[in-house]
Parts: sequence; structure tokens; C-alpha cells
Amino acid sequence: MRTDLLRRVEDRLRSLLAAERDLWSGVHEGAVVPIDALAELIASGGKRIRPAFCVTGYLAAGGDPDDPGIVSAGAALEMLHLSALVHDDVLDDSGTRRGVPTVHTKYTQLHGSRGWQGESRRYGEGVALLVGDLALVYSGELMAEAPRSVVPEWNRLRSEVMIGQYMDVHAAAEFSVDPRTSRLIARIKSGRYTIHRPLVVGASAAGRGDLAPAFEEYGEAVGEAFQLRDDLLDAFGDSADTGKPTGLDFTQHKMTPLLGWAMQRDEHIQALITEPGHTPDEVRRRLLETGVPDDVERHIGGLVERGCKAIADAPVDEVWRTELADMARRVAYRTS
Amino acid sequence: MRTDLLRRVEDRLRSLLAAERDLWSGVHEGAVVPIDALAELIASGGKRIRPAFCVTGYLAAGGDPDDPGIVSAGAALEMLHLSALVHDDVLDDSGTRRGVPTVHTKYTQLHGSRGWQGESRRYGEGVALLVGDLALVYSGELMAEAPRSVVPEWNRLRSEVMIGQYMDVHAAAEFSVDPRTSRLIARIKSGRYTIHRPLVVGASAAGRGDLAPAFEEYGEAVGEAFQLRDDLLDAFGDSADTGKPTGLDFTQHKMTPLLGWAMQRDEHIQALITEPGHTPDEVRRRLLETGVPDDVERHIGGLVERGCKAIADAPVDEVWRTELADMARRVAYRTS
Repeated sequence: MRTDLLRRVEDRLRSLLAAERDLWSGVHEGAVVPIDALAELIASGGKRIRPAFCVTGYLAAGGDPDDPGIVSAGAALEMLHLSALVHDDVLDDSGTRRGVPTVHTKYTQLHGSRGWQGESRRYGEGVALLVGDLALVYSGELMAEAPRSVVPEWNRLRSEVMIGQYMDVHAAAEFSVDPRTSRLIARIKSGRYTIHRPLVVGASAAGRGDLAPAFEEYGEAVGEAFQLRDDLLDAFGDSADTGKPTGLDFTQHKMTPLLGWAMQRDEHIQALITEPGHTPDEVRRRLLETGVPDDVERHIGGLVERGCKAIADAPVDEVWRTELADMARRVAYRTS
Repeated sequence: MRTDLLRRVEDRLRSLLAAERDLWSGVHEGAVVPIDALAELIASGGKRIRPAFCVTGYLAAGGDPDDPGIVSAGAALEMLHLSALVHDDVLDDSGTRRGVPTVHTKYTQLHGSRGWQGESRRYGEGVALLVGDLALVYSGELMAEAPRSVVPEWNRLRSEVMIGQYMDVHAAAEFSVDPRTSRLIARIKSGRYTIHRPLVVGASAAGRGDLAPAFEEYGEAVGEAFQLRDDLLDAFGDSADTGKPTGLDFTQHKMTPLLGWAMQRDEHIQALITEPGHTPDEVRRRLLETGVPDDVERHIGGLVERGCKAIADAPVDEVWRTELADMARRVAYRTS
């Protein structure tokens, strides 16, 4: 049932882009470029975590699996995420995503190789800006097909992720040790955006706003675990698994909780990151010496437990409690 | 009646931002920066053309002036426009807007003066990217308060403006003479976005989709006049009036219809624009010599006439036909 719904989410994403492509290719041959950029990104993979939580929240809340509204809601969350990825890659100047060149990298190179007018970087980043804007617009289009009961949660989700992103960019620029801000950003950007609010969007679509508190507690805990795993994968993971370069948090000066805690124990780490001439391996070794990565692993374990407990007493069917507990573990112990 | 509705649009824009500010200032003192950036942009002025056409379309269609949905629809169009302005200023690297520094310029300078980590340009443009994203999200929030009947037109308006922007950026990079593409971009970016679709959003909110054809013909004509005036103001206007530097289309290699037509008559103009060492005054003089600016003036006159004719037989009250004719002239002969 859930697998079928997630397949239909996938179909909806593709059918929207295909319809737009049909419409625009009749207007001007050049107009389809931003649409095709989104289609390529969808085809290149991705975990579809947000649609999965949205659909799970809906089914756990007893929603009708034949209602097309939930399919559109799941697709809207994924389309919003595509927008965030394309814009995020500009903010971070990331070269690859899902194993292929990022949008701004691809169009910066194209501009350079064709010898077009103006600055290649501005062109490439400009195209990515507009491709991300287009995805943001399409996500709104999709969510307008969902029941109106999702609107308040959807509004909060979107403005929150933009403000969280701003705070993240700003914290990276200031790069001062401030664990309160780091944890707030992690909670806003990951917990709520990836898990808590998608679950509540799903429950709201089923008319079960009463599930919001349990889903919030579950989502905040599992979401923090998700983000901490992200930080560990960035610091110690394998880019062949993650599809993007590792060590980006170091080079981008991301004030992650992992780095924040480590810097509190070892002042020297800040210098290793900000001063030239140090390799990511030096940072990794020093990080391990602080013992913080082990602490983070233990903390993840506690968060998963807290998430499962939050859901244990929720008024949802046993089968969905088990499934949500499984999802918590899959998210917290993923390798990519 | 219309003045009152437009005052309420203004209040709605401010009240949304004030409520968001209240919410976020309680979360983190740094979170309000992107909200304040939008509030400053609203306070700095602007012509509010899109809300004016939306509200006019609604009233001409016999909509109830006491329905708060039309206020939200008007505010949504203006908020979308704020997003487009902030992102556009990054695409064009414009330094000022409405007489004050653009968002990316302000935050690039702030970053530099504070000596923060990372590249000042990436920070400033990143903040602007997120401020624009936030405005795009708020515009969706506002439009969700309008009657559902606006959704199809609202969807088309938004995706069209993003794709039109992409085509504009791409045409500026290629900078080949292609009047068909130039006119298409002008029609998409200005006519439809500024006049035709806001009018139809208003008519749809009043349940009068039957007015769409007349509003489309009016909007396409008056919108083209609006854009041609924009091109003339950029080439020959006074930056003290427009609040932004003039000659931007030259330095940004914007393939406007004005430049496209002039380049067809005088090949040398392309070199004056793309090759270093030429002043905007040289381009201006050469443009005038082609006679194209006079032709454009005449063309604007014809477009205004065509717009008025389109509305002359529309099933709307006489008072609104007169008002729409007045608006056509105000838009086509504005000085800022």
C-alpha cells in the first residue's frame, strides 16, 4: 500500500514535468532547459525520505490510500526538496550531487566552453537559481492539489526551511562556537523539515491533526539523529556511497553540532579548519581524538529510543508503530 | 473602493511579515534578518502595479470588495514580485533598487566589513537567494487564502515567470539577434506577468473566468507597451526617477526588443555593447540614429490603442472600461 503510494508519488513528479515540457516545447525550443534540469535530478536518484514520512503519516492516521491528494502532497515535498538541493549547491558551491555535476557547475562550464557573453559563474549560478525557483513553484502547484487541511503545516515547513538555511549560512560565516544555535539550526533544517512536518502534513491530509504532538516528538528526535548521521557521513563517510564529496562541512565552515562540540573540547580544531594548509584527514584525526564522534553515536542511539517511545503511545495502529520504529533506525543508521 | 482594497493589500503584506517577525524573534534573535530584508524592500516603495491590476480585474468582474481573499491575492502577487526583484538583482548584479542597496550588495559588503569566513560574494548572494526564496514561499502562503478558483492562473503565472527569466538570462549570454525570442521573452516576462495574469487572477477570484480572453488581449498589448517603456527608460531615462542605474540592459547584454531591432538596422551597435572601451552615451547616440526609439514610441501608442479596444467590448461596467484605459496610458507613459 505504501510502496504503491510512493510509486504514484514518483509518477506524479514525472507527469508534472512531462506535461510542462510538452507545454513549453511548443512555445520555444529553449524554454525546456530548466524543466529538463529538474527531470534529470529526479532521475538521478535520491532517498525520497520526505514523501516516505508524509505517506506513512497519512496511512498511520487512517487516510484513504485511493485519494490522489496524498500523492500530490508527497510529490510536493520532494519537489520542494529538489529546489532546496539546487539552491543549497550554489550556497555551498558543491560540484557534484547524486554522483553527477550540480546544476550551477554544469551551466557554469557550458557558458565557459561556448564563450558566451558575461561571467560564467553568474550564468551558471543564475540558471541554478531559476531552476530552484521553478521547483519551488512546482512544489506549490502540487501541494495545491492536496486537501486544504495541510496548508498551515505546509506554510510553516517552507518558511522554516528558508529561515533555517539563512541561519546556517550566517553561522558558517561567523563560525563562532555556539552550540545552542547549532542545535537549533539542525532541528529546524533536518528534524522538522525531513521528518516531523512531513509526518504532520500526511496526518493533516487525513484530517488527524490530533497526531501532531506525537509526530512532533518522534520527528524532533529522529530528525536530530538523521542530521547527526549526516554530519558523521560528511566527516567520515565514503563519497562513493553518499554521491557527494565528503569533508564539505570543513571546507564550508559548517558549524555542525559535531564540530561545535569538538571545538568546545579542543580549541585547536577551529584553526585546523579555518587556517590554510591543513588536510581534511588532519581534522578527522583530531576530531576522533576528542571522543566526540563516539559520543555522537551514543547520542544517536538515545534519540532513536526517544523517537520510538514517542510513537509507542500514539493512537495509531500497531503495524504503523512498528514501521515508524523501523524507519527511525533506517534513517539513523543509513550509510548514504 | 479600489484605493481601500490596495491599502488593505499593503496592510496584509506588512501584517504577514510582522507576524512572522514576532514568531521568529522568540526563537532566535538572528532568525529575523531575512524577514526584515523583505520588510525594508516593501517600505522602500514600488509601484504595486500587479496588485492594482489584480484588484481592478476583480472589481471589474463584480467581485465583493469585502471578501478578504482578494486582498490576499493582491498581496501574493506583490510578494512574488519582491522575490523576483531580489533574485533578479543577483542575476543582473545590480547595486541599487528603489534607491537603496540591493540585498546581495548589502550582505556582500557586511560580510567583507566584518571579516567573516568564506567569500563575501557567495555570502551576499546566498542571503539574497534565501530572502527571495522566503518571499516566494510567503507569496504562496498569501495566495492560499484566496478562492481556489485562482489556482490555475496563479500556477501558470509563476512557472511562466521563472521560465521567462531563464530564457532572458540565456538570451543575454548568447546575445544573438533573434527578435522572435526577444519578443517572446518580453511578452512572457512583462505582459503576462504584470498585467494579463494579475487581471485574470482577479477575475477568477470573482468567479468570472469568462473575462479571460478580453483581459488577455488587453494585457498582452498593454504589457508589451509596459516592457517597451521599461527598455526606453533603461536606455534614456533618469536613474533619479527610476531608483536604479540606467543603461543596465547594455552592460548586462539584455537582448531587449529595442536593442534587437536597433542591431538589425545597425550591426555596429552589437560591437559597441560587447566590446570594451565604449560608453553608454555612445550606445545611446547610435541607438537614436537608427530611428528605432521613435518607432518604439509609435509602437507603444498603437499598443495602448489595441489594449483599449480589447476592453471596449468586454462585458464589464463602463466605469471599469474607462479605468482600464486610463491604467493602460499610465503604464505606457510612466517616467519611473
